[in-house]
Amino acid sequence: MAKKKLNIALIGTKFMGKTHSNGLRQVSKFFDLPTEPVMKVLCGRDPGDTKAAAAQMGWEEHSANWKEVIARDDIDIVDIATPGDLHKPMAIAAAKAGKHVICEKPLANTAKESEAMLAAVKKAGVKHMCGFSYRFAPAVATIKKMIRAGELGEIFHFRAAYQQDWIVDPEFPLVWRLQKKHAGSGALGDIGAHILDMCHNLVGPISEVSAATQTFIKKRKIPDSRTGMHRSNRASKKAKMGTVTVDDAAIVLARFKGRNTLATFEATRFAPGRRNHHTFEINGSKGSVVWDLEDMNYFQYFNRADPDQAQGFRRVNATDPGHPYADAWWPPAHSIGYEHLFTHEFYDFIRELNRKTVSYPTFEDGLQCNRVLDAVEKSARSKKWEKV
Amino acid sequence: MAKKKLNIALIGTKFMGKTHSNGLRQVSKFFDLPTEPVMKVLCGRDPGDTKAAAAQMGWEEHSANWKEVIARDDIDIVDIATPGDLHKPMAIAAAKAGKHVICEKPLANTAKESEAMLAAVKKAGVKHMCGFSYRFAPAVATIKKMIRAGELGEIFHFRAAYQQDWIVDPEFPLVWRLQKKHAGSGALGDIGAHILDMCHNLVGPISEVSAATQTFIKKRKIPDSRTGMHRSNRASKKAKMGTVTVDDAAIVLARFKGRNTLATFEATRFAPGRRNHHTFEINGSKGSVVWDLEDMNYFQYFNRADPDQAQGFRRVNATDPGHPYADAWWPPAHSIGYEHLFTHEFYDFIRELNRKTVSYPTFEDGLQCNRVLDAVEKSARSKKWEKV
Amino acid sequence: MAKKKLNIALIGTKFMGKTHSNGLRQVSKFFDLPTEPVMKVLCGRDPGDTKAAAAQMGWEEHSANWKEVIARDDIDIVDIATPGDLHKPMAIAAAKAGKHVICEKPLANTAKESEAMLAAVKKAGVKHMCGFSYRFAPAVATIKKMIRAGELGEIFHFRAAYQQDWIVDPEFPLVWRLQKKHAGSGALGDIGAHILDMCHNLVGPISEVSAATQTFIKKRKIPDSRTGMHRSNRASKKAKMGTVTVDDAAIVLARFKGRNTLATFEATRFAPGRRNHHTFEINGSKGSVVWDLEDMNYFQYFNRADPDQAQGFRRVNATDPGHPYADAWWPPAHSIGYEHLFTHEFYDFIRELNRKTVSYPTFEDGLQCNRVLDAVEKSARSKKWEKV
Amino acid sequence: MAKKKLNIALIGTKFMGKTHSNGLRQVSKFFDLPTEPVMKVLCGRDPGDTKAAAAQMGWEEHSANWKEVIARDDIDIVDIATPGDLHKPMAIAAAKAGKHVICEKPLANTAKESEAMLAAVKKAGVKHMCGFSYRFAPAVATIKKMIRAGELGEIFHFRAAYQQDWIVDPEFPLVWRLQKKHAGSGALGDIGAHILDMCHNLVGPISEVSAATQTFIKKRKIPDSRTGMHRSNRASKKAKMGTVTVDDAAIVLARFKGRNTLATFEATRFAPGRRNHHTFEINGSKGSVVWDLEDMNYFQYFNRADPDQAQGFRRVNATDPGHPYADAWWPPAHSIGYEHLFTHEFYDFIRELNRKTVSYPTFEDGLQCNRVLDAVEKSARSKKWEKV
Repeated sequence: MAKKKLNIALIGTKFMGKTHSNGLRQVSKFFDLPTEPVMKVLCGRDPGDTKAAAAQMGWEEHSANWKEVIARDDIDIVDIATPGDLHKPMAIAAAKAGKHVICEKPLANTAKESEAMLAAVKKAGVKHMCGFSYRFAPAVATIKKMIRAGELGEIFHFRAAYQQDWIVDPEFPLVWRLQKKHAGSGALGDIGAHILDMCHNLVGPISEVSAATQTFIKKRKIPDSRTGMHRSNRASKKAKMGTVTVDDAAIVLARFKGRNTLATFEATRFAPGRRNHHTFEINGSKGSVVWDLEDMNYFQYFNRADPDQAQGFRRVNATDPGHPYADAWWPPAHSIGYEHLFTHEFYDFIRELNRKTVSYPTFEDGLQCNRVLDAVEKSARSKKWEKV
Repeated sequence: MAKKKLNIALIGTKFMGKTHSNGLRQVSKFFDLPTEPVMKVLCGRDPGDTKAAAAQMGWEEHSANWKEVIARDDIDIVDIATPGDLHKPMAIAAAKAGKHVICEKPLANTAKESEAMLAAVKKAGVKHMCGFSYRFAPAVATIKKMIRAGELGEIFHFRAAYQQDWIVDPEFPLVWRLQKKHAGSGALGDIGAHILDMCHNLVGPISEVSAATQTFIKKRKIPDSRTGMHRSNRASKKAKMGTVTVDDAAIVLARFKGRNTLATFEATRFAPGRRNHHTFEINGSKGSVVWDLEDMNYFQYFNRADPDQAQGFRRVNATDPGHPYADAWWPPAHSIGYEHLFTHEFYDFIRELNRKTVSYPTFEDGLQCNRVLDAVEKSARSKKWEKV
Repeated sequence: MAKKKLNIALIGTKFMGKTHSNGLRQVSKFFDLPTEPVMKVLCGRDPGDTKAAAAQMGWEEHSANWKEVIARDDIDIVDIATPGDLHKPMAIAAAKAGKHVICEKPLANTAKESEAMLAAVKKAGVKHMCGFSYRFAPAVATIKKMIRAGELGEIFHFRAAYQQDWIVDPEFPLVWRLQKKHAGSGALGDIGAHILDMCHNLVGPISEVSAATQTFIKKRKIPDSRTGMHRSNRASKKAKMGTVTVDDAAIVLARFKGRNTLATFEATRFAPGRRNHHTFEINGSKGSVVWDLEDMNYFQYFNRADPDQAQGFRRVNATDPGHPYADAWWPPAHSIGYEHLFTHEFYDFIRELNRKTVSYPTFEDGLQCNRVLDAVEKSARSKKWEKV
Repeated sequence: MAKKKLNIALIGTKFMGKTHSNGLRQVSKFFDLPTEPVMKVLCGRDPGDTKAAAAQMGWEEHSANWKEVIARDDIDIVDIATPGDLHKPMAIAAAKAGKHVICEKPLANTAKESEAMLAAVKKAGVKHMCGFSYRFAPAVATIKKMIRAGELGEIFHFRAAYQQDWIVDPEFPLVWRLQKKHAGSGALGDIGAHILDMCHNLVGPISEVSAATQTFIKKRKIPDSRTGMHRSNRASKKAKMGTVTVDDAAIVLARFKGRNTLATFEATRFAPGRRNHHTFEINGSKGSVVWDLEDMNYFQYFNRADPDQAQGFRRVNATDPGHPYADAWWPPAHSIGYEHLFTHEFYDFIRELNRKTVSYPTFEDGLQCNRVLDAVEKSARSKKWEKV
């Protein structure tokens, strides 16, 4: 008996459009789903590019008019993978049309926008997910289970950094991610959002922050067209200069209501050699864990209860059977790649579409993250601790 | 204009069936191919299982009769992913039918069989590839380029190990991979073949070997059905015992004609904690490299020309742009997984279908590997160095 | 011709007494010194213990009266390795007596005390060193040279942590290091002082900070006697409880006058598995470096100028010839241990005894560190950024 | 009450002379010994050099006539740290004079010489130690305890390499270590001896071997004087060429009487970047361990009994309390260096001077190693497995 179909419209054809398309194409090939996701329509800004991308990535249809697509009766899920300034209108339109909504992170460029989005999906009674994809790494999911089970005890420290290096070169041009009107903020909202959410995911809600931000390179050349994240990108020689209106880096201290945990965060695009270095360390009364996105399938675990002469961090490969999501894939230590964070994301979303409580990050998590992002920016200006 | 289609029949539905299906499904999504591969027919032993697997993995048709499928006019490529004892009849039949042939490694259970297979594809004038998949890791492909460009200088040492641990437990049952009639040999032909081919790929043909093999556990329970490679597999409690007829481990010294290089190899399924630990180190007059499958996207590189106070092995991430295959994927250090070794394999095969000379491993490489495997077994018996 | 002798009095017989004694005993065996250090008198609190320690560690004499010893004409150098509350009276007395003074870190428990100490040594015209021992690791000294030579370019980030775990257990007793009257502060002044000084050493003076501190365990058993830093130490079962009056952990953000650099610091004794984990990472416009005390002889170095396909952090062993101090020791990669940080410290101090400008950390550095420590504590109370 | 003195004569002033002197100087400072070792006489070839070395390293007397020194009544222990061709006459003379004898490894250049030496010490009834120093690393001593306690179960694999790179450059001169008449063999006897002994130490006696050796660079310039192991050493420009009469590298397979264990060995001086890379891995039925001299204080341990979701190699720091020798040193993870392998060696030797059974490697171990070395050379010639 054929499964019920679930028609999806994706808005966005670039980096995140590619990851979402791939996750949707692969999810039913590896996981047993209650319904069959169908890659119905891909929406993009430029008709020609969108047509080519749809063909390349396996979408049935394509469109340059997201409003029309959202209005279609046959669409069940709207998946938003655009720059942050477009999230709010798209998500609210989708919710009003009764569609389930998936939206990339940060949920919006401000908490205020996120509040409106959350209100809309709640009012519409639709499902909503915010794409904090790193929650879906098997290693991270195992760590979450361990913490929930009390295996780390009381948490003393959360310490995270997300470091990249793609704009260290002053010749790298002024792409949309470096413009406040599109991206909201810089390293902070792009990669800082991931580490703040990871803290929410594993430890709990941050209640106050102290922060500093910095823009190291304040003027850059304006590029001719939209361009990707590779460090060798260049504007044309004659390009005019424009002003970088976002942070290049942010550092944050954080505290939590009702617990003594101390947290530190660093998000930067100015760390040469750190291509995509998202790491965290958690120290608890019973043990510690360390994770590093650049070795995504592993985590390190120290157990204080180990025998005295055999104590040490052990390197656990979370593709081993028994770890979340691992059984769907290959034999132990046959690694899976970055792309399957999205495959897992879609698996959880589709599997839980008819459940009352869900396991994945929702717009509430997206809003909570935006509130911390706002407090970080406020603290960076006030030079004081600020409540979330 | 639509691309010409290329119809593929895959024989095998288990581990390798799954990796090949995935690679074929993904290759045209990420790489620009001259022709469009079509997942036409999946062949398997059991009709019901094959039907289910075909549906799950995206094949248009399924069949339990590989001979019929090979005979079909509309099939362009036959891809063999079965136990080794079936490679020869299938490959020869495919060649005779004028199909291009892809065959998993080891090409056959003996060099004699491989010779017949090579003769058949040559006579038929079809393309042929032997699935030494690890050649297709971006890090390995970069190392090959470096060696070809002389960046390591004269090669002094090649040192490789492929260690696994899935049969350490005496309760693990007597699966087909532990039976000589199906698998030809044990760790030697399964994972030893990979490290021997890696040496051929990077250094050149081995000319003589000295070796020892060992079966640590000589009797195991006979399982009820075919079963996978996970270390927790068990036969039923009442299962009868059978004899393990293959090696559990092999160690090998090797030399090369016309060069002074020394090589050592170890293949074992008895290395606790080494889930899938395929490593090699190469020391040359200008530098050294190290690779480890469990950190597949990285390699380590030591350059003797580095300044005196900054010498050290550097850890290079081969998902960085410029490395082979890397541009097709994600931004730097957004890892790719094991499965894409096969995606790359199909990319090279399809791209070069009309070329006179090819870059991928052919049946000639498969035969060369089988000859070394035969010499290893001969040496293990004779307790002398044996010529390949 | 015999070298001029240099008579040394050391005050302190415990952990730091042991490291200093060893450094003094070894320094002339490996380094060519202009004068010959003589281990003249060891001073301690308890006469019996001090006598035994002097015999064990190679001191000619011993005394339980440091004031008498400082007054002796034949003493050239007074070396202070006591709890922080005793530094000021001892250092000032030594300076007044015209002795050169070496003092353990933190220089004092407050900046005010340090100011008085610095004034005293300046007035007396004697040499003074503050024992920031980690500056003397060959790897750290190489990194300093690289930064001075501009090899990292403009510094964007300094990121350091000093994590230990010896008091995680609530049964660990209330030793002097957990009492404000003796230690001044907790993790902050003990190990935080090291990472702050490392920042001063490599980047430059911190001008303002935002910080938080935390005491995770507020009551502990009072031990019967002075006891060491091992995590299994216990008070007697009947011991009374006392109050921990220092921080268990501190987290700090910092900025610098005249540069855009962002810095983060974490000092904690509550990180299970991190026995002695002093690490820092520096990201500059030309490259990055990482150091970790637990792998003391190595550092990692990323050079943006490396060829595109061979970029990566390289692991440099600073026992290789050419690195500072390395030539005195063993062949390359024959490691040296923690203890020789002190050997190097005494080497530099004695070698430069007659120089006008010195390379080692002085009381000025000690004072600068104390000023930051004071600002950290002020900020932890005020919840605002505080100027140093 | 003063301890009884133990007068030591050391022959050898170069690398090993320096390590032995340091160990003797330090051992009583850190370990509680039943007798007090006295650094009585240093013997060397050149009177002036020996005098200077004795002063520098803390010896009471010096001599260029080892025969006279051995004959002295007041000498209790003769410690031989010379090239291998001098071991036999010195050790036999010392034994005949009734002295305890310590001798560097390899015990001699052939098993025949070692036999004579063993016979001499046995006949004289003196204590004897062969300097396999790596047995004395705390991490190695812990691994030995674990194996003896059955914690690794049945041993399947021993896999070791000792790789260096100091003679890769063809301009490196023909030092004594490259001449058969002095050194006996090349990489094989120098560093190969260490890994073979490590196997004896941890697994048991090797019973047969298959091997190959290679000399990569056959002619080198003759140096003007004796010179050290640094890779930048050079002969004068006008130096004449001489023939390298030893191996540059050796590779070995080994088997054991009465057990199924397979072993592989590689000793080479031609591995760029591997400055002093002595590693081994042991795989047993209950777990695995890995050690690497370049991270001497650590070992990795995999325990098959760990919970399924937390399996992985853990990195144990053997300076943690409870590990052999560790209590004598610093707090946990305050590393010790290479030099203290010798400190531990002297500790064990002196502590056990009046015991019937000893824990350290004796001339019997030295002979056993020489027998394997001889078999390796025989096998390299015969191209067959050879019995030890």
